Amino acid sequence: MSQIKCVGILTSGGDAPGMNAAIRAVTRAAIYNGFEVKGIYRGYKGLITGEITPFKTQNVSNIIQLGGTILKTARCQEFKTPEGRKVAYDTLVKEGIDALVVIGGDGTLTGARIFATEYNYPIVGLPGTIDNDLYGTDTTIGYDTALNTIMDAVDKIRDTATSHERLFFIEVMGRDAGFLALNGAIATGAEAAIIPEISTEVDQLEELIKNGFRKSKNSSIVLVAESPITGGAMHLAERVQKEYPQYDVRVTILGHIQRGGSPTAHDRILASRMGSAAIDALLEDQRNVMIGIRNNEIEYIPFNKAIKNDKPIDRELLNTLRKLSI
Amino acid sequence: MSQIKCVGILTSGGDAPGMNAAIRAVTRAAIYNGFEVKGIYRGYKGLITGEITPFKTQNVSNIIQLGGTILKTARCQEFKTPEGRKVAYDTLVKEGIDALVVIGGDGTLTGARIFATEYNYPIVGLPGTIDNDLYGTDTTIGYDTALNTIMDAVDKIRDTATSHERLFFIEVMGRDAGFLALNGAIATGAEAAIIPEISTEVDQLEELIKNGFRKSKNSSIVLVAESPITGGAMHLAERVQKEYPQYDVRVTILGHIQRGGSPTAHDRILASRMGSAAIDALLEDQRNVMIGIRNNEIEYIPFNKAIKNDKPIDRELLNTLRKLSI
Amino acid sequence: MSQIKCVGILTSGGDAPGMNAAIRAVTRAAIYNGFEVKGIYRGYKGLITGEITPFKTQNVSNIIQLGGTILKTARCQEFKTPEGRKVAYDTLVKEGIDALVVIGGDGTLTGARIFATEYNYPIVGLPGTIDNDLYGTDTTIGYDTALNTIMDAVDKIRDTATSHERLFFIEVMGRDAGFLALNGAIATGAEAAIIPEISTEVDQLEELIKNGFRKSKNSSIVLVAESPITGGAMHLAERVQKEYPQYDVRVTILGHIQRGGSPTAHDRILASRMGSAAIDALLEDQRNVMIGIRNNEIEYIPFNKAIKNDKPIDRELLNTLRKLSI
Amino acid sequence: MSQIKCVGILTSGGDAPGMNAAIRAVTRAAIYNGFEVKGIYRGYKGLITGEITPFKTQNVSNIIQLGGTILKTARCQEFKTPEGRKVAYDTLVKEGIDALVVIGGDGTLTGARIFATEYNYPIVGLPGTIDNDLYGTDTTIGYDTALNTIMDAVDKIRDTATSHERLFFIEVMGRDAGFLALNGAIATGAEAAIIPEISTEVDQLEELIKNGFRKSKNSSIVLVAESPITGGAMHLAERVQKEYPQYDVRVTILGHIQRGGSPTAHDRILASRMGSAAIDALLEDQRNVMIGIRNNEIEYIPFNKAIKNDKPIDRELLNTLRKLSI
Repeated sequence: MSQIKCVGILTSGGDAPGMNAAIRAVTRAAIYNGFEVKGIYRGYKGLITGEITPFKTQNVSNIIQLGGTILKTARCQEFKTPEGRKVAYDTLVKEGIDALVVIGGDGTLTGARIFATEYNYPIVGLPGTIDNDLYGTDTTIGYDTALNTIMDAVDKIRDTATSHERLFFIEVMGRDAGFLALNGAIATGAEAAIIPEISTEVDQLEELIKNGFRKSKNSSIVLVAESPITGGAMHLAERVQKEYPQYDVRVTILGHIQRGGSPTAHDRILASRMGSAAIDALLEDQRNVMIGIRNNEIEYIPFNKAIKNDKPIDRELLNTLRKLSI
Repeated sequence: MSQIKCVGILTSGGDAPGMNAAIRAVTRAAIYNGFEVKGIYRGYKGLITGEITPFKTQNVSNIIQLGGTILKTARCQEFKTPEGRKVAYDTLVKEGIDALVVIGGDGTLTGARIFATEYNYPIVGLPGTIDNDLYGTDTTIGYDTALNTIMDAVDKIRDTATSHERLFFIEVMGRDAGFLALNGAIATGAEAAIIPEISTEVDQLEELIKNGFRKSKNSSIVLVAESPITGGAMHLAERVQKEYPQYDVRVTILGHIQRGGSPTAHDRILASRMGSAAIDALLEDQRNVMIGIRNNEIEYIPFNKAIKNDKPIDRELLNTLRKLSI
Repeated sequence: MSQIKCVGILTSGGDAPGMNAAIRAVTRAAIYNGFEVKGIYRGYKGLITGEITPFKTQNVSNIIQLGGTILKTARCQEFKTPEGRKVAYDTLVKEGIDALVVIGGDGTLTGARIFATEYNYPIVGLPGTIDNDLYGTDTTIGYDTALNTIMDAVDKIRDTATSHERLFFIEVMGRDAGFLALNGAIATGAEAAIIPEISTEVDQLEELIKNGFRKSKNSSIVLVAESPITGGAMHLAERVQKEYPQYDVRVTILGHIQRGGSPTAHDRILASRMGSAAIDALLEDQRNVMIGIRNNEIEYIPFNKAIKNDKPIDRELLNTLRKLSI
Repeated sequence: MSQIKCVGILTSGGDAPGMNAAIRAVTRAAIYNGFEVKGIYRGYKGLITGEITPFKTQNVSNIIQLGGTILKTARCQEFKTPEGRKVAYDTLVKEGIDALVVIGGDGTLTGARIFATEYNYPIVGLPGTIDNDLYGTDTTIGYDTALNTIMDAVDKIRDTATSHERLFFIEVMGRDAGFLALNGAIATGAEAAIIPEISTEVDQLEELIKNGFRKSKNSSIVLVAESPITGGAMHLAERVQKEYPQYDVRVTILGHIQRGGSPTAHDRILASRMGSAAIDALLEDQRNVMIGIRNNEIEYIPFNKAIKNDKPIDRELLNTLRKLSI
């Protein structure tokens, strides 16, 4: 049986909608189970600086609907050094925090894994990232909201894309993963998605665009994942414009709006279930695992697997997009 | 190998956001595979009245984002009689329609099952209903949008629920199924959900409310599924008000706004995948099945199972709600 | 020159989106001008109970986008009595508050007028009510947001209103004023608005509805102001249903969702300008006036005029609705 | 008395939300008054190509809520030549169109003015542009929607701007006019607006930013009008980053999303009133005027004045922004 008395919570890395819902769930589930809770500000940096405060149920009242994270987030260089992690550990001991729940992406879980190993310290991770690029969970906290934000933006752009032969390249987030671009393209009826998982030969792109124009005789929209592999929307637009000067090529880079906004129902429910499950995991003496939900079931995914394993793109989705964009 | 040359599409029963995305997907996937397509207006009624028109890709351009259904929908008494179905069959023969894709809920699939059996006619169904009460699919087309509409409405009500001891009963749809009420309650941080699957003894409700007030010292929100089993929000409010005259009890019935609105990304992608899968099913000589997506995989669910089997509420969700509403 | 050193702020009566933007503006404009600021909770009740706290610029950071009011609001019976107002006055003296800015509707300004006269105490009012029923300002804080909330809801209902001869009565707020119903009807392309300013004879309503059906052969939507004069949507629906059993009559009562939500740009800018102007007014030794904006100019409206004068409905709007609903 | 029998409608230039509401209003008010109506596609280009179709009330049913324009829009070089305008005039004669209502911005009205003079042809213009840069009307059709779109985007960015000393430059539309940037800044609580009307000396910008950081110790957001005069967000960001390498400077260019989306209540009502007024103007034998609404009254503004006169920025707004961003 777990000897944990006090749980610390932090959010780290790029923020994602639903992080507040997760903070609320962890806090309330912990208190429900008799734990104390402390909120750690600015990610791992708060463990260095000691910016930590006790959390009661009221601290997380009326935050489920807010974007961003009330605990703030930051990147922290010190935590990447053994000296920094020593300071962090001392802080945890001093504050009487027996276990951590960390909410974030790849980098956050990597930091957690190293620290947990080094100090034999119980940590449970929640996947909080709009990119959906963590193995072991069907979706990550923030992904559904970002997808809907992208959809709303592309819908607006589609409203204005009425002239003949106008071609929009819209860049969305997804350094290593094309989930947002591919699903965003299906959701908006876009003509194509350029994603890092599929190497798009120049000819393919051109084929695609010519087909788009030939068939629809109207505007075409291509979603591009922001990634060194794709080269980004601006790069593609320039190449296409050069080859096809007759097209009216436009670029929109959606940028930071994709990280914000009130979370969708999906993200709030996901965050609530995962936050509650994180406390269950600690009660079951689980540690150094990420909470995942696959096929609607809670799973405990060892940090190693969550970070290192690739999460493949579903080929059926690519086919669906191709068929429907005729 | 399928001998189908022309596919008819119709939407029937209560409309649901995403039906247009499904119509678009069925039409385009059919054309992609070399079928002709005909749109049938006002559900089964269109088979009686002959309100049918050929569909090209342009007929379904720029509709993926629209609520409602461009094919209209209606209840049809004639189709419930053998004579009516005979007229419908004759219409299909006359129009050269070899197979049907029908989009709707329980009643729609029941009609399809009877007709398909009677005339040995190939029909594939898509689950289109905000209630999410069809067996064999994790979610139905329209459910996610309705859930988000409910969430937005409750968020607004929460904004104004700032005085002490104000108790809101908010009625949401769900005659036989508490999915919207339960998930809506989790997504909005509501204090409780009254759903038809769980018989709520009077004492439980009172316990719950007293706890709500005792703990939060603030407004409480209870979501109630509109159902003869729950009695509805107004009925519950009156009972509670009578017992607890000191509370300021309010009722809001969300009503028809839950059926409308631009579909969410989830519903558009679901509808796109299912619409595409419906044509795949016809190509594989599948018939008299509903397309479901479970655990992210396309499945063919015989009409009988989709309609008759109960889809149970997940107990984990009830626990999550209880823990987080402390 | 004003001898004011410390300004108190409160919100009272029914809450309205934009109240937080007004609180922020009053606070910051006051601090900009060298005043201290104190926030008074739960309207006039906070003056009785002493629930008051100093406000710095940070207290109002990141609230401009929030619905509701961070200062809470309440109705207060005590403040309607001379004894209650004496307690309130003593509280103000004790707290060193030299002037008040109150944000609310009719009742709030009435309370302010009485108190200001009784104690010769400087008060500036801001019109905060979704009903837009205060004289001396083109719009009140919250009105534009409520109008857009109504529009979004009616748009959703319109999505589903596709069958023949379905008639929706949608009830919106507006006890004494038809602004929301009339402008909401124009904004949504509704067929008619039933408002307290215009007595709608039974025959007129029937004429209207028959015309609606005759012309559009489709669904009709009528917006009804919730008011004893109109009788409300349910009452009208029953009357019409009785006379015209062939119609499928439906009722939706939008209710409390109209008071909530993140304020629109119009309401945030209005609240920001008015909040800033309230401090200007105090600096100019103005008192017992409501800030209005008419023809885009700030005006000081004596409380008496703001409360007592009727704000007429624009006949041009009625004509526009009639012409466009053919 | 007017001898007009048939009115043509077109939308031209950059599209703006609310154009469809205007098309609907012109069409219905015209039919209400006994005119025939014809819709002209792709702006003035439709007068060259003859892409014109009769409009009934049903042609404009259920479009009030749609972004973009069902009549499409295009730039048209031919119409800038006397030869092109001759073709256009011949088309109007051939189609039996006696008068035009044109909806668009500066360029659209300039074209109308030239054509109207050349052929003594009655034209009424409606101000349809998100930039709000036409003289003679308090707001233009589309401006309020664009402002709210900007606000929503900046709210999302604010959600994620939680780290210390992060400085966002967000570029919004407004080549010659700072309405969107300035009002957007007030509505979002941004720290500053860089607009073409006010030449911002380098030092002012720096002063401003240093103050922002000094005071709020938090993220700062600056809205920048896209304009050769301001230099745009990217240019400013680079300059600031160079001088202040310690800041984390980010840029977001909102781009085309600002032109799309379902129009707000304000824009739909404005478009409805103006569209109705355009027909009134023709009935009164007015011609070659733009419909404006100032101080809530319909006005007829000669094309010359609407195009050539500057519409000044309100200094009070600049003061409000400065006071509230402390």
